[in-house]
Amino acid sequence: MIRIGIIGYGNLSRGAEAAIRQNPDMELVAVFSRRDPKSVKVKTEGVGVYHVDDIPSFKDKIDVMILGGGSATDLPEQTPKYAEMFNVVDSFDTHARIPEHFANVDEAAKKGNNIAVISVGWDPGMFSLLRMVSTAILPEGNNYTFWGKGVSQGHSDAIRRIDGVKDARQYTIPVDKALDAVRNGENPTLSTREMHTRECFVVAEEGADLARIEKEIKEMPNYFDQYDTTVHFISEEELLEKHGGLPHGGFVLRSGVTGLEKENHHVIEYALKLDSNPEFTGSILVAVARAAYKMKQRGDKGCKTIFDIAPADLSAMSPEELRAHLL
Amino acid sequence: MIRIGIIGYGNLSRGAEAAIRQNPDMELVAVFSRRDPKSVKVKTEGVGVYHVDDIPSFKDKIDVMILGGGSATDLPEQTPKYAEMFNVVDSFDTHARIPEHFANVDEAAKKGNNIAVISVGWDPGMFSLLRMVSTAILPEGNNYTFWGKGVSQGHSDAIRRIDGVKDARQYTIPVDKALDAVRNGENPTLSTREMHTRECFVVAEEGADLARIEKEIKEMPNYFDQYDTTVHFISEEELLEKHGGLPHGGFVLRSGVTGLEKENHHVIEYALKLDSNPEFTGSILVAVARAAYKMKQRGDKGCKTIFDIAPADLSAMSPEELRAHLL
Repeated sequence: MIRIGIIGYGNLSRGAEAAIRQNPDMELVAVFSRRDPKSVKVKTEGVGVYHVDDIPSFKDKIDVMILGGGSATDLPEQTPKYAEMFNVVDSFDTHARIPEHFANVDEAAKKGNNIAVISVGWDPGMFSLLRMVSTAILPEGNNYTFWGKGVSQGHSDAIRRIDGVKDARQYTIPVDKALDAVRNGENPTLSTREMHTRECFVVAEEGADLARIEKEIKEMPNYFDQYDTTVHFISEEELLEKHGGLPHGGFVLRSGVTGLEKENHHVIEYALKLDSNPEFTGSILVAVARAAYKMKQRGDKGCKTIFDIAPADLSAMSPEELRAHLL
Repeated sequence: MIRIGIIGYGNLSRGAEAAIRQNPDMELVAVFSRRDPKSVKVKTEGVGVYHVDDIPSFKDKIDVMILGGGSATDLPEQTPKYAEMFNVVDSFDTHARIPEHFANVDEAAKKGNNIAVISVGWDPGMFSLLRMVSTAILPEGNNYTFWGKGVSQGHSDAIRRIDGVKDARQYTIPVDKALDAVRNGENPTLSTREMHTRECFVVAEEGADLARIEKEIKEMPNYFDQYDTTVHFISEEELLEKHGGLPHGGFVLRSGVTGLEKENHHVIEYALKLDSNPEFTGSILVAVARAAYKMKQRGDKGCKTIFDIAPADLSAMSPEELRAHLL
């Protein structure tokens, strides 16, 4: 049994908790929170909730710690800190800061003789894996990544920060025409606006100036100004009823050529259609936690990404079973 | 520079030869043939062709040997033989015999302190990798593999063996309705007939009994009897003109559930659309040859499959570059 701990208890942590129940070789030992443990109720019977200050006392009771925190402030501090005590897995996704995060975590993990896998999920994560492997196979070509249709939590939060907005949900939607052009091997050069549109469902506070809110959304730098954005004002009930889930997905494509004259064209496509972004991401974190455990058992240490994990390590099946059933 | 040798000079070997030219960290050193070397003309300037009997004398001149032979008789003998002398990569695809092949190759590779990667290509190979990783992420679900639209060389050969047939090309075609049902998360149970159809273009010898040929094709056990098969008789000119290429492709899908009540559904899809099956397969063999070289450099040895290769080893980029540009 691989003994798992989870730090934090937001959407992603709950997704990982649910995933552990689907993997008979793993058990959830404890959940750690910065809040009063008595105020946190987990869904797995018999699993205790402890304050993060108690984490060091679990050093010999937990094989891999899954970090459910956010990339902005939690993980830059938590991942190095806990990598010194445990094998850890995080979902750090601030792209520009990955080299710095990697260096900090690598130093800590090596000090503790642990494995720390960072930037795990589907992007970064599975999408990265597909981009990387496809690029290695077809070195001459272009990569395209489309996200959606799905809820962007960052964009939804950005709308919620506008004055007069009570709640909001933002969907990122890939543009079919662009996706089809890539699939057809046209190797198009695509602007930000040509790849995705944004659709917003907004609950306004009573008496708020809707025209002003819509204008503020559509002109918001980086988040919306480079996109064709649609804004719908709806009631709170409708938002909860029709937009309560966290679906997501997307497409990674590589379009490349081979042949002495580069005369043959190939398209590799990887597509995800997810009912629950946090549960799917949590499922990946759990599979990677297994890999971290196996790598540690073999005496490896340091910071890793999905690029460094031999795929067999993700699976509960033996190498013989994998070769017999999935090769 | 990684020094590559190729054994055999059929379609797959020529695909690998073309791929090496797209990878600046690799060079083709020699091609080996069972035929008179003077009768074989390779496409890469300055590369010599040698008889297979000369292979042992290249022990210190070649880092990885790519085996372009067939699974029926060539590879069971060649892969263990050459794994004792070189790091090797093969495309062994006789599924039922993989455990036996693995054991033979593993023993030889360990004896020679070499890395031998078997069953490399897109199926087995990339499709296996996607099935395996997706199954590890979503342990509760179903895998579906569709092939095509593309030319099946095995089925084309089977038609050519019929009396009165001069030449033939057989396309395997996935059934859209079945593919859509899987994409929609319906988790259908699909018979062989429901997943693929077969379309045959046949050049008959003059005066041959077309009705008899069509009947023999459609009733051929395993190859055609379990499928809806269409047969078109065409001229030799039309066959060459319209069906001269070797396109292929296919789809691997995993449809699975997550959540405490298994209430959320996810579909992972991997799709290939290939102008040239042998060139794409050759490109994969070349990337895997690089991984074999790196694994050997680290002191690893024995038989491996795509499941055992850390993805970063496939790439010519450094770990830092991969994290910066593709993660």
